[in-house]
Amino acid sequence: MHVNAYAAPASGQPLAPITIERRDVGPHDVLIEIEYAGICHSDIHTVNGDWGPQPFPVVPGHEIVGTVTEVGPDVTRHQVGDRVGVGCMVNSCGECANCRNGDEQYCLDGMVPTYAGTDRDGTTTQGGYSSHVVVDADYVLSVPDGIDSAAAAPLLCAGITTYAPLRRWGAGPGKKVAIVGLGGLGHLAVKIAHALGAEVTVLSQSLKKQEDGLRLGAEEYYATSDPATFEQLAGRFDLIVNTVSASIELDAYLGLLAVDGTLVNVGAPAEPLSVHVMSLIGARRSFAGSMIGGIALTQEMLDFCADHGIGAEIEIIAADQVNEAYERVLASDVRYRFVIDTGTLG
Amino acid sequence: MHVNAYAAPASGQPLAPITIERRDVGPHDVLIEIEYAGICHSDIHTVNGDWGPQPFPVVPGHEIVGTVTEVGPDVTRHQVGDRVGVGCMVNSCGECANCRNGDEQYCLDGMVPTYAGTDRDGTTTQGGYSSHVVVDADYVLSVPDGIDSAAAAPLLCAGITTYAPLRRWGAGPGKKVAIVGLGGLGHLAVKIAHALGAEVTVLSQSLKKQEDGLRLGAEEYYATSDPATFEQLAGRFDLIVNTVSASIELDAYLGLLAVDGTLVNVGAPAEPLSVHVMSLIGARRSFAGSMIGGIALTQEMLDFCADHGIGAEIEIIAADQVNEAYERVLASDVRYRFVIDTGTLG
Repeated sequence: MHVNAYAAPASGQPLAPITIERRDVGPHDVLIEIEYAGICHSDIHTVNGDWGPQPFPVVPGHEIVGTVTEVGPDVTRHQVGDRVGVGCMVNSCGECANCRNGDEQYCLDGMVPTYAGTDRDGTTTQGGYSSHVVVDADYVLSVPDGIDSAAAAPLLCAGITTYAPLRRWGAGPGKKVAIVGLGGLGHLAVKIAHALGAEVTVLSQSLKKQEDGLRLGAEEYYATSDPATFEQLAGRFDLIVNTVSASIELDAYLGLLAVDGTLVNVGAPAEPLSVHVMSLIGARRSFAGSMIGGIALTQEMLDFCADHGIGAEIEIIAADQVNEAYERVLASDVRYRFVIDTGTLG
Repeated sequence: MHVNAYAAPASGQPLAPITIERRDVGPHDVLIEIEYAGICHSDIHTVNGDWGPQPFPVVPGHEIVGTVTEVGPDVTRHQVGDRVGVGCMVNSCGECANCRNGDEQYCLDGMVPTYAGTDRDGTTTQGGYSSHVVVDADYVLSVPDGIDSAAAAPLLCAGITTYAPLRRWGAGPGKKVAIVGLGGLGHLAVKIAHALGAEVTVLSQSLKKQEDGLRLGAEEYYATSDPATFEQLAGRFDLIVNTVSASIELDAYLGLLAVDGTLVNVGAPAEPLSVHVMSLIGARRSFAGSMIGGIALTQEMLDFCADHGIGAEIEIIAADQVNEAYERVLASDVRYRFVIDTGTLG
């Protein structure tokens, strides 16, 4: 099956229309007609070669929502006509300790990323900036009623990336949670943490987006460019989720944690960070990292978001606007996620 | 009351006999006739000025076991004749959130260290290398039957320092725990982790103390000087307790953790450490720090050790051997803790 898509032909080159082949629907596969695909910052890193050589042409996109149009004979989980989603991974070994524990993203054999990855049959995966995709049914999520399809798309990466640490480190009633950065990830983190019952503070470089932050569910909003912030909030938080991938001054942020507090990075700066161990020892604090989440947790997140009316704040674009959108993402000029209407692929 | 003690007269000077004054027994105080005082590496750091200027003369010692010889009229917790212990702190505000949570060591007003600290009445505290000490009853622990007094002394610092993170991060049946370093702290960590039911591995620079490690309760013992160790044990542990204060290559040790695993430092190198965030994100790992433990947890630890027949492995010395003992501690020539028989103070 040949389908329309948008691909980066080579490292750093603008994306352009392309036709790619999707495999035949196998016994355990689902064919999805894609409706929307979110633009994640990591799409840009990948096609720009920031993360090393890639199997060009690369069709990015791992925030996919669409409709099932065909299922293999062994599929029981999804039916033709179901609204479904696909996130950052489309396969894993299914047998290692991590897969068995529902942490397929940490598959010891290596999970298969939705694009620019090597699938278990040896083929190269191509992502969601396309009209259709064929995915093993176990890696396809149900998108419940109650969320708009376009607003649901970013939940598949940005949503689970923030939901997972918020759940793992107990964001909820009585907990003070800070979200560092109010971008694609951060704005969802604020909504989710608020819906989980936590008391949410945004720590952003400036107060530019303060009104948005408070509207999305934050009770307080502080500028990290103001040194007074770090004095005023010392020892305040039970959990800080850092959605910013640039390097931060770790010791300063750790100082904002209460006893037993945790600072979780969901992005990884390229350079190593420096940390004084005393910043941790002085209050039994932790510095942690978290990467997306397993399939079951992703489904839980989608159900939670539907129950709480949570979707991403989005700007819908046509496929031919993707290069311009990339520029705007790099300039932090989006509130808060671009979503491609893949119907415009023709 | 004037009592005999051993003090460092100035930074880096050998310790020598001295007479110090102990305050009158207040309504809520306990007078303790000290029998044994352990030598902790931090005693040496303090008197050598590694941690900044000190209120010399300094009488070190925060691993104290002795007998109650007088109690104030308001004391109900201890009685004359009781065997008791004093650890690293002798006071705190008792009112802040951390004190109320039983984390007096993280008192927001500053806990009062057992020596070289300023007590809440403004006097300078003097430690356990002395014949007697007067301490607020709330900071005095009961030493239960079943542990030898001399072997119990190091539990008051080395014991709680390792027990606290082992309990906080769930060392127990089905958990794989590694202890980095087999010294004063490490050898107790091995005994305690084993008694908690965990599967214990020692990670030591060489295999020199392997026989000891296995005897103390470890099931495996690896040399960290051998690069193969880090390949062989990749992704193995749920918890690593690092008892070594020297800098370590964090990324290498983090690679030994399974998904959701935690590496806890109980010592703080002076220099900051470098960490690649990907070492954490790649398996939802944490890097944490922990400092001694609260009074209630210290009592729990002593009761646990008594129940499980755990004491430190010690070498008892006379007070006039303390300078020589310091040299040997610095040369790692002790298995595993020096304890001063304070009866030798005259």
